[in-house]
Amino acid sequence: MEGIELTEAVKKEIKPYERGVHYYETDQMGIVHHSNYIRWFEEARSDFLEQIGMPYDKIEEEGILIPVLAVSCKYKSAIRYGDVVHIYLKVTYFNGVRFKASYQVIGKETGVLHASGESEHGFVNRDMIPLRMKKEYPKMYELLAAYVEEEVLDRKKTPNTRS
Amino acid sequence: MEGIELTEAVKKEIKPYERGVHYYETDQMGIVHHSNYIRWFEEARSDFLEQIGMPYDKIEEEGILIPVLAVSCKYKSAIRYGDVVHIYLKVTYFNGVRFKASYQVIGKETGVLHASGESEHGFVNRDMIPLRMKKEYPKMYELLAAYVEEEVLDRKKTPNTRS
Amino acid sequence: MEGIELTEAVKKEIKPYERGVHYYETDQMGIVHHSNYIRWFEEARSDFLEQIGMPYDKIEEEGILIPVLAVSCKYKSAIRYGDVVHIYLKVTYFNGVRFKASYQVIGKETGVLHASGESEHGFVNRDMIPLRMKKEYPKMYELLAAYVEEEVLDRKKTPNTRS
Amino acid sequence: MEGIELTEAVKKEIKPYERGVHYYETDQMGIVHHSNYIRWFEEARSDFLEQIGMPYDKIEEEGILIPVLAVSCKYKSAIRYGDVVHIYLKVTYFNGVRFKASYQVIGKETGVLHASGESEHGFVNRDMIPLRMKKEYPKMYELLAAYVEEEVLDRKKTPNTRS
Repeated sequence: MEGIELTEAVKKEIKPYERGVHYYETDQMGIVHHSNYIRWFEEARSDFLEQIGMPYDKIEEEGILIPVLAVSCKYKSAIRYGDVVHIYLKVTYFNGVRFKASYQVIGKETGVLHASGESEHGFVNRDMIPLRMKKEYPKMYELLAAYVEEEVLDRKKTPNTRS
Repeated sequence: MEGIELTEAVKKEIKPYERGVHYYETDQMGIVHHSNYIRWFEEARSDFLEQIGMPYDKIEEEGILIPVLAVSCKYKSAIRYGDVVHIYLKVTYFNGVRFKASYQVIGKETGVLHASGESEHGFVNRDMIPLRMKKEYPKMYELLAAYVEEEVLDRKKTPNTRS
Repeated sequence: MEGIELTEAVKKEIKPYERGVHYYETDQMGIVHHSNYIRWFEEARSDFLEQIGMPYDKIEEEGILIPVLAVSCKYKSAIRYGDVVHIYLKVTYFNGVRFKASYQVIGKETGVLHASGESEHGFVNRDMIPLRMKKEYPKMYELLAAYVEEEVLDRKKTPNTRS
Repeated sequence: MEGIELTEAVKKEIKPYERGVHYYETDQMGIVHHSNYIRWFEEARSDFLEQIGMPYDKIEEEGILIPVLAVSCKYKSAIRYGDVVHIYLKVTYFNGVRFKASYQVIGKETGVLHASGESEHGFVNRDMIPLRMKKEYPKMYELLAAYVEEEVLDRKKTPNTRS
């Protein structure tokens, strides 16, 4: 990302990612298949990265890959064809080597919490060698770091037990 | 399932679910996209249910749906086109209302642990009303109960804190 | 559709369906997997139906299903992550029992023709019994009929009337 | 493929590709979503290439990519969860630069023709430059050429108008 123009590392207001349902995402239970939420989380990450000024295609062009290390989702209320949801993403952890994001999938009209989830990611180069962002991509590090906030939804205690 | 012939509730040896990679499951990182593991877990569940004598299409014909309540996956080592994996499923919890399964995705030839995960499920009728399997489908309850084992992989302590 | 308010059967200007690429839609060739174009065609149909005032979820609520009878796609130029395309849909045939649509997938910025395709559809009720739209759903018939245009693309005469 | 051992260019009997339905492949119409047939065709191609001794992962390792140039499918009879189908693939055209395959999707137990389709492919290197197989990969050329048969299903006349 050092080769492209980054906005200054000031936290902007992030809009939730809006998503309708594609017919092919439903299953014969008449609801969105659970695996698609994991894909929607990825879409929300892409949208977030674009909103903060470092779209993922540009990140990959810089030679940085951000593989998924872990993912989880809790399904609260089914989503159906015709529904529109907002996905709220928060960066809940970032230490320059890994980051975690949380997701809340909420009905646009209804305000219903359909699902919540988390994902964890590393930064690697094309040879899958881990990158230390602070040292190797300091601007990107600063930018992403500006968005870290402690996840407080659905929880009472500090979630990050990693160090 | 009460309408179909079930095998007696004796625990059979379950074979792991074998799976190659479809080209369309890879992404431009050159690896199987992480969302597909969640789909493979579902395939492994279907295979397990078929092995124990109650295939999921027959379960649905009985009017029982088994929606996913939660799912998680930890990715340890990428899977590539040409790889073949074995997915080991264990039923780690079942109380007649919910059950949990764990998954280990292991290279068929290599023995490498590619990923591990969990899923949690309920039993509902077509109106999405929860079912109490012990009372309403006692044979199916007994059969599934025979396969519950405590998950010990990747953990030091008893995982199930639900009651 | 007869139960919902339809706009009058006047042909409105239809905007192309705009679509970015999701990472999970790429394959290890580094391009959007060809099967996804078929899904994008479906998205473009949904978008078209919504633009003309009869969204597909409402159509299904009326008890009308529109299964796909045939689909085809010619791939001219790969689409990559980061690209944005416009899909131009035309209704090329409609006789009250079946309809056909054509699709042109064109780079939003580049104007490049990435792919063109066709699909054919019937109208059935929930028991998969064919419906005669003119008789059974006259308003919907009129509305859809207003959008039929002869397909001239991929033929000998100048197809692109776009400017 | 010249770097790997190929079987001699003698046409073996090819077994149809057997495929059950994954739950996530169904849609809310209660049938396999039409886009998945296109994916199954790809699976059938992979299976065919493996049966004739040149698995596609090995082909790609040799630096040969086989992108899809066109695909089509006609849907005759829905496929449902619990069904098992056989996909019969025939190579209907091959001139060293392009090849075409046809597919018939037939119920394993029922013999019902669920769908038929075609695909067309080129051979390119990693820079997407077309390859002339006869000259550059003569053994692979001979092997694939041995399997060409004229497609006669669903047609009265010779289909290949390309030269």
